[in-house]
Amino acid sequence: MRKVYLDHSATMPLDPRILEAMLPYLRDIFGNPSSLHDWGEAPRQALEVARVQVARLIGAQPQEMIFTGSATEANNFAIKGLALAQQDKGKHILVSAVEHFSVLNAARTMGKLGFEVSQLPVDKHGLVYPEEVKRRLRQDTILVSVMHANAEIGTIEPIAEIAKVVKETGAIFHTDAAATAGAIPLNVAELGVDALTLAANQFYGPKGVGALWLRRGVRIMPLLDGGIQEGGRRAGTENMAAIVGLGKAAELAQQEMSARQEHLMPLRDRLIQGVASRIEHSYLTGHPTGRLPGHASFCIEFIEGEAMLMLLDARGIAASSGSSCTSRALKASHVLTAIGLPPELAQGSLVFTLGQSNSREDIDYVLEELPPVVERLRQMSPLFAKFVKAQKGGK
Amino acid sequence: MRKVYLDHSATMPLDPRILEAMLPYLRDIFGNPSSLHDWGEAPRQALEVARVQVARLIGAQPQEMIFTGSATEANNFAIKGLALAQQDKGKHILVSAVEHFSVLNAARTMGKLGFEVSQLPVDKHGLVYPEEVKRRLRQDTILVSVMHANAEIGTIEPIAEIAKVVKETGAIFHTDAAATAGAIPLNVAELGVDALTLAANQFYGPKGVGALWLRRGVRIMPLLDGGIQEGGRRAGTENMAAIVGLGKAAELAQQEMSARQEHLMPLRDRLIQGVASRIEHSYLTGHPTGRLPGHASFCIEFIEGEAMLMLLDARGIAASSGSSCTSRALKASHVLTAIGLPPELAQGSLVFTLGQSNSREDIDYVLEELPPVVERLRQMSPLFAKFVKAQKGGK
Repeated sequence: MRKVYLDHSATMPLDPRILEAMLPYLRDIFGNPSSLHDWGEAPRQALEVARVQVARLIGAQPQEMIFTGSATEANNFAIKGLALAQQDKGKHILVSAVEHFSVLNAARTMGKLGFEVSQLPVDKHGLVYPEEVKRRLRQDTILVSVMHANAEIGTIEPIAEIAKVVKETGAIFHTDAAATAGAIPLNVAELGVDALTLAANQFYGPKGVGALWLRRGVRIMPLLDGGIQEGGRRAGTENMAAIVGLGKAAELAQQEMSARQEHLMPLRDRLIQGVASRIEHSYLTGHPTGRLPGHASFCIEFIEGEAMLMLLDARGIAASSGSSCTSRALKASHVLTAIGLPPELAQGSLVFTLGQSNSREDIDYVLEELPPVVERLRQMSPLFAKFVKAQKGGK
Repeated sequence: MRKVYLDHSATMPLDPRILEAMLPYLRDIFGNPSSLHDWGEAPRQALEVARVQVARLIGAQPQEMIFTGSATEANNFAIKGLALAQQDKGKHILVSAVEHFSVLNAARTMGKLGFEVSQLPVDKHGLVYPEEVKRRLRQDTILVSVMHANAEIGTIEPIAEIAKVVKETGAIFHTDAAATAGAIPLNVAELGVDALTLAANQFYGPKGVGALWLRRGVRIMPLLDGGIQEGGRRAGTENMAAIVGLGKAAELAQQEMSARQEHLMPLRDRLIQGVASRIEHSYLTGHPTGRLPGHASFCIEFIEGEAMLMLLDARGIAASSGSSCTSRALKASHVLTAIGLPPELAQGSLVFTLGQSNSREDIDYVLEELPPVVERLRQMSPLFAKFVKAQKGGK
């Protein structure tokens, strides 16, 4: 059976060239970069090389990069650390309704600790409007967080325009760029943000490493207290192999970004058009054009999404119904709710996220296998039976 | 030149057998264990195998293990998460004066957030006395944290006895076992603690992974909010290769613990006796017998420790002056201050931490190279000149 992995937003395979770069740090170069002796020297240098590589990917200064153990940690660090460090100026935090749970739940935790959290609504494509941000900014707003792109619906947010609005106040602006860093061109100066999250495993790097970029001069309170690593802002022995892997991943992503996009976009569009033409009562979710290069997400009416995933899995196809971080929670997606989808439609969510190893044959295989899966499930769906009956009655 | 690594408490080399176990998770098995499809299945199983392996090492239940990105994260999680979850019962936290900075500074942060933190004193060997704990426990004490062993002076604390005292109250008892887990036998039931921190790179596992063991039923507030990984207690895509490595490291440590101790202890004792007989005005720090199997720490009078490390490094020997997490901060060690060493003595700190690759020849090499290093530095020391002069005058 053909095996087709179309769940790259859950996690990506590690590029063998990146593993190659990491292996020396899993073998001979095992020292702690904080050590003053010879064993600390090579890791110390490698750490700074990686810092330069990652900074270059996003147009930042190396000393502004803080390595973390994941994008989730970077998001928690940003929301909690920035809020706590600015609380003398106010206690209001503004986050979009479609953020990843590592932002939303971190903000909720700050709500329990005496901060006030407001959510920014989105339109039917998941877009945050700068005017809505403006309307909700207050004198005591200290932090705004809007993601660069949403991994469930693929929509890319107008961060630069939102930044202009936020910068008219004194608030700090953070963006979770886990879905975009390494995937599309990204420059922190052009975006106009103060802090940015990225994740290595979203551009073929290893799991267990991410980074928070923090504009020089912005105050933050550490989330992980302890030693003086990362300029005293993030304690813990550096995960050297992973950091070297993140650096290499950033370098490769930068070099190959155009080629990767040129590979992904036609496949994505083929999939989107194929689903539209072959599956009745299916709808593209997220923005029709302003979306991630490898992202194709749908709602298939009269279908229970989890069952669809199981049947696709049985045919060798990996897809998801939304965020893998909550896929086992089986709740209606907060993102689909925020874009106004009624629950019965939201439950038919189907997300394909493409990667470099995917081919045109993969897409054609999915377009061949999906219709019978949908048909089979609809045959078992009381909602669909009701709909068909209503249609017939209407004739 | 001979190269002798005697700084294993800073970090250890990754055991090639552990790397072997990790490699499949850096190559083909790249899926996210939260994914419902086939790619999630193998990682999901591997995650639970690792959980069993680590739980066995410390006599715990698998579902009580929470994987983290480091021991530093586990310590921050424990101190902050346990304090915040119990704050309805009180706001007093008790930590020993010789804790790692990831405990001390996490407690300090809680102090800034409205908690009250008291420190437990230690004796000249670095021991925390249960009676001192009893004296300082209050009705509003919600959390006590005393490390299992200190990485700077090697002293093993009487955790079980302290636990008895703590358990007479309602406080939660956490121990940072980063220095002991995998090194000496350890059973959470026998220790009587409620929470325990461990680190993979302290028993030949990879960097970037640790664990917090939390007794079933003990409430904790997440440090990393987000997805529902680790039972909703620690969000973020699981770092599969590292977790598999931690599991394998735990399995090997359990199997080989006696052999490892039998290898280390004679080498340690040879080094301790050798330094005592060859270096005048040198003192063993930490407990003379109740200490870590591979730990030999000293204060060398009339010497500036950093200079000693440099000269040893030039002869191929890696040692440290204390915690690698702060080695670049060049401050007087809080541990040596807590055991009552005057600053002029504390600055001559020299810590050797041995590992499985060290041989008797390594130790003999150090015993040969150390005396001329000490002599050379003393010749340049005004303090030593003064001392010699005073001695002559006294005759």
